[in-house]
Amino acid sequence: MVLERVKQLAQQVTNTAGPAHPLDPLTLSEIEATVSILRAEYGKLYYNAITLFEPPKAEMVKWLASPDHAPRPQRKADIVVIGTDGKVYDGVVNLEAGKVEKWAHTPGVQPLITMEDLQAVEHVCRKDPKVIEQCGIVGIPPEEMHKVYCDPWTIGYDERFGTSVRLQQALMYYRPHVDDSQYSFPLDFCPIYDANKGEIVHIDTPKVRRPVSRNPPNNYNVKDIQQSGGYRTDLKPINITQPEGVSFTIQGRVIKWQNWSVHVGFNYREGIVLNNISYFDKDEGAVRPIFYRLSLAEMVVPYGNPEHPHQRKHAFDLGEYGGGYMTNSLALGCDCKGSIHYMDFDFVTKSGAASTIKNAVCIHEEDAGILYKHTDFRDDSVIVTRARKLIVSHIFTAANYEYCVYWIFHQDGTVQLEIKLTGILNTYAMLPNEDTKGWGTQVYPGVNAHNHQHLFCLRINPSIDGTDNTVFQVDAAQGAGEVGSAENFYGNAFYAKKTKYTTPEGSKADYDGKSSRSWDMCNEGKLNKYSGKPVSYKLVSREVPMLLPKENSLVWKRAGFARHAVHVTKYDDAQLHPAGRHVPQTSGEPSQGIPQWIASNPTQNIANTDIVLWHTFGITHFPSPEDFPVMPAEPMTLLLRPRNFFLRNPALDVPPSFARTPSEVAAGKQGCCSKDKASVLV
Amino acid sequence: MVLERVKQLAQQVTNTAGPAHPLDPLTLSEIEATVSILRAEYGKLYYNAITLFEPPKAEMVKWLASPDHAPRPQRKADIVVIGTDGKVYDGVVNLEAGKVEKWAHTPGVQPLITMEDLQAVEHVCRKDPKVIEQCGIVGIPPEEMHKVYCDPWTIGYDERFGTSVRLQQALMYYRPHVDDSQYSFPLDFCPIYDANKGEIVHIDTPKVRRPVSRNPPNNYNVKDIQQSGGYRTDLKPINITQPEGVSFTIQGRVIKWQNWSVHVGFNYREGIVLNNISYFDKDEGAVRPIFYRLSLAEMVVPYGNPEHPHQRKHAFDLGEYGGGYMTNSLALGCDCKGSIHYMDFDFVTKSGAASTIKNAVCIHEEDAGILYKHTDFRDDSVIVTRARKLIVSHIFTAANYEYCVYWIFHQDGTVQLEIKLTGILNTYAMLPNEDTKGWGTQVYPGVNAHNHQHLFCLRINPSIDGTDNTVFQVDAAQGAGEVGSAENFYGNAFYAKKTKYTTPEGSKADYDGKSSRSWDMCNEGKLNKYSGKPVSYKLVSREVPMLLPKENSLVWKRAGFARHAVHVTKYDDAQLHPAGRHVPQTSGEPSQGIPQWIASNPTQNIANTDIVLWHTFGITHFPSPEDFPVMPAEPMTLLLRPRNFFLRNPALDVPPSFARTPSEVAAGKQGCCSKDKASVLV
Repeated sequence: MVLERVKQLAQQVTNTAGPAHPLDPLTLSEIEATVSILRAEYGKLYYNAITLFEPPKAEMVKWLASPDHAPRPQRKADIVVIGTDGKVYDGVVNLEAGKVEKWAHTPGVQPLITMEDLQAVEHVCRKDPKVIEQCGIVGIPPEEMHKVYCDPWTIGYDERFGTSVRLQQALMYYRPHVDDSQYSFPLDFCPIYDANKGEIVHIDTPKVRRPVSRNPPNNYNVKDIQQSGGYRTDLKPINITQPEGVSFTIQGRVIKWQNWSVHVGFNYREGIVLNNISYFDKDEGAVRPIFYRLSLAEMVVPYGNPEHPHQRKHAFDLGEYGGGYMTNSLALGCDCKGSIHYMDFDFVTKSGAASTIKNAVCIHEEDAGILYKHTDFRDDSVIVTRARKLIVSHIFTAANYEYCVYWIFHQDGTVQLEIKLTGILNTYAMLPNEDTKGWGTQVYPGVNAHNHQHLFCLRINPSIDGTDNTVFQVDAAQGAGEVGSAENFYGNAFYAKKTKYTTPEGSKADYDGKSSRSWDMCNEGKLNKYSGKPVSYKLVSREVPMLLPKENSLVWKRAGFARHAVHVTKYDDAQLHPAGRHVPQTSGEPSQGIPQWIASNPTQNIANTDIVLWHTFGITHFPSPEDFPVMPAEPMTLLLRPRNFFLRNPALDVPPSFARTPSEVAAGKQGCCSKDKASVLV
Repeated sequence: MVLERVKQLAQQVTNTAGPAHPLDPLTLSEIEATVSILRAEYGKLYYNAITLFEPPKAEMVKWLASPDHAPRPQRKADIVVIGTDGKVYDGVVNLEAGKVEKWAHTPGVQPLITMEDLQAVEHVCRKDPKVIEQCGIVGIPPEEMHKVYCDPWTIGYDERFGTSVRLQQALMYYRPHVDDSQYSFPLDFCPIYDANKGEIVHIDTPKVRRPVSRNPPNNYNVKDIQQSGGYRTDLKPINITQPEGVSFTIQGRVIKWQNWSVHVGFNYREGIVLNNISYFDKDEGAVRPIFYRLSLAEMVVPYGNPEHPHQRKHAFDLGEYGGGYMTNSLALGCDCKGSIHYMDFDFVTKSGAASTIKNAVCIHEEDAGILYKHTDFRDDSVIVTRARKLIVSHIFTAANYEYCVYWIFHQDGTVQLEIKLTGILNTYAMLPNEDTKGWGTQVYPGVNAHNHQHLFCLRINPSIDGTDNTVFQVDAAQGAGEVGSAENFYGNAFYAKKTKYTTPEGSKADYDGKSSRSWDMCNEGKLNKYSGKPVSYKLVSREVPMLLPKENSLVWKRAGFARHAVHVTKYDDAQLHPAGRHVPQTSGEPSQGIPQWIASNPTQNIANTDIVLWHTFGITHFPSPEDFPVMPAEPMTLLLRPRNFFLRNPALDVPPSFARTPSEVAAGKQGCCSKDKASVLV
């Protein structure tokens, strides 16, 4: 009976509106089918994740090259579940065969904390006598326990408790009124929650106690702003409209726009995953592959206050919570302007139901200012062309912070990743006139916002005109020869010093701002006809702070990917997660993910082969009062730029908004103007 | 008779539409008055520059504080002229008194090269027998001399010729057709032009000759694109409209927008100058000064090919040519979208006529994405607010390149400077298969684009809540104590290490990308009430390459400002030009501008006084074929961000586009939405 249903569901998978692209996320039906198959086999389970098991690259590459003849990669589900006994199981379900293909108990790990896991803790805290007692100590009476809130984080790692018990730490807050911002009222103690027991098992309390702040709220809600001076009234609307519609087409999840083609995937951890990024090069008359896969694969947010237990504040927001799971439904707010295409995200709930985040991914175009311009100073003959960009974005809320992730495609062949940080600072209680000792800033009376870093790990599997690629470090360097020497008489010689990475161990590299260090992903087998240099894409990234927690510190051990700005590894289907597959409660001994992979084969060849470049970038944030009570978006960005890839500016055929040649000027002719023009003189 | 006319004109100055703001650029009438006064006194002169002599700051500050009672600073003209005998004179004309106030012959200098100076050279080259001979050598017959073009640059500095003779170097090109891009046909020789004689006095020729390229043109003009595949047709219009008009007001040249107030000046060298930048702080109920004056004060573009005479290619585009003089009239092309306010630029011609660049400055608003957002993960209560920015911009063409300069004001108190580089690479001839030796790239057959840097010098005269300010260098630094120590047990301590600059000599600082080095401009006399830290603005700049020409090289000597990312000096009315007042043909012995000022008083106090922060930033450009034949705009940016300046996010009162509180969610109420909303589902 159950198996019958499973087969029906599996059938649906291949029938619904044509077969899915092998890299499409699992549909609701596929998630349901996966649960049915597992239930039939193993009974009741707590579902942590059911996501697409991405087909092996070797299979995918064959199918992409010849979708009509090569075997179509099978639809499979990658699953993480927790048994009713608390044991963790990893597995793979073959949806086309309707059967479990892999299934194994994985000892000594904790899978990520889902939104449901998070939601549970606050309710337990409010009723827990030990928490009620602590609330009393800081001045909150038992009848106000409904005003006590917590942001439950995974415990990260705490050597007192290890990995075997599934734990969360509850960062505590108080709200005088339900609509007040709780981050203005942090509490000074930290309960530890055992997820399997559903109980508070310990409370960390500081030596010096800090009564709850009785300062007025510091709010951003509409009523409070209206009551304290009101909203500004001098902003006139800017309307952005696309009367003829958008310039992109979407088939399934493949977007085509301005010579670009890209498959937009999505999973519970990384959020947006971009695959098979290619560009139709008019000059070559061919579609040229650029990246096989691009994603934000991990991040870590270490806080800089050394006092216990703040060292536990170093969230791996992707690996410990899931950038996909935490994604905002954009149906709940209008975050973009213009004509928007949305994509949903389907996922499994703890009980095994399939659920959906509506409008998880936003796809839209924006005007992007001048694409290029040149005026001839002799006669004012001129050409000016406006740029357009395509943005694939999602926004996720990690408790207090929001991360807005924008994957941006430009007409000149550039791929840009922009991240805007907004939301609210993580805050801790402080006494009046307490010394923050430089580890934080009082952003409001009684509110200490600790120093922290946001370090993201970008995973790039390049495919620059083919699978075999090489990474070169590029430093702007002075030429040889002192001033006055024959070879460099005037001392002005400089060049791009290129260092080839041949082994993973040798590819560990830090950032150097003075030399404008960048990294080229090249295909050494194909030279640009004009420059004679390998076709390449350059990683240009300028927000690359060093990891501030020290060598052999807890964060350094757990977030091995963040030790260097760049690591390069040989491609491996199984190496997706730079801090490991299961991140919560890893001790970092040994370090999971990148350090482990590199240590396992430090001298493996990474030149002229299928490689992955892992890039850690981000910002160091020393809070200040203007970041509070809600932070103006702080942007950071990086570029992947074609260098020696095209034979000329690939956007020359974008219609100019104005152009007049010397002969037209001489003949007194007007220039030509495109219709896409909306300047009005005021 | 002449004096009568002078007095009339002087009268007009004060009568026309009310008196000018003391910092307004000179008007056409004022320029005419200045010329009349000088003519009456000295007869025929060649006018190099007539620009506002900016009132001494001491006078201005008094007047700004009390415009109705303090004496109004007088209108004066700062002038540079060349006598008919070739002598250079600097002077000041008092327009209100109608008389010359200062007048002096300045020996051993060359004032900048104007557009008229530039225009002259090409015509002379085409008729010069030595140039015709050289053209013959590279394969251009005499009957094709009308197809020969040159970009005349100042000679920069050439020790063979020194400073006394006014010289230009003519970078030579060929155009098969008048509408072809000449930069695909560079010639290998370089005539030297004597501006006073109007003659070619020397030609530099390379040892190895390179015949003119006979490759097909590489064009971006409309006809050629239409003939080689045509324009793409899949771009649908994006219309940006402001049906209710703009959100700013302009009185004279003072713009008020979203609590900001700024006076927009303009001169022939720096282009846009921003003065008296202040912000109305609702919480303090006061207008708070932030910057007295902001401008791009200088730049240098060193090229990295050590072969003679390429060392001469290191243009100081502002000091040698004038960013104002080279500014595009935006009447000739529609460079921005939305509702635009333009300002003109009036200047003097060589003969002493007053002329105008129409629409030199563009002022407009743009939507700027998310200003802030926060979602409560418990109930999806949310607030999201869109940002707006105000952009004051101009674009100047420096022969081959265009520089698009955007001064951007944000609602959160941030001032951003964005520069987009577009236009065309400077190119040099190369033989088929010639080795570029790493100093350049063949971007098209026969075209060698040399490595170069674009280094800009931003001049900041801060006025953070008053005139007395101090600069601190800020580095993200690890805390003391090894892993395992009591003070830093988990090794995660980090903080903002602040280094106070007390002397100009001690303020010379380079960039450090790993420590995310930034610089705070503080008022130590005013502490933020919450954080206890001095109110400040932080310079956040990430594109800060080192100057690649070596110590004691020609460029290092001439462009002293570029030796370090930051220099701080005590404010001096006379210190406006980081590489000196007259830049062409300076030898760099001694270095003009910043090094000279600092050497004159290296230990002068710069703490808690009126200071200027000089910041050099930019990019190093290793060309590639996709930069050619016209370069997609390459952006670089820096931020001036309020830190500990406000008591809270100053943009909290920008109306949200969507907001719903927890109590509204609980009550099943819809959120509220602003009317400024144009999202459409597709």
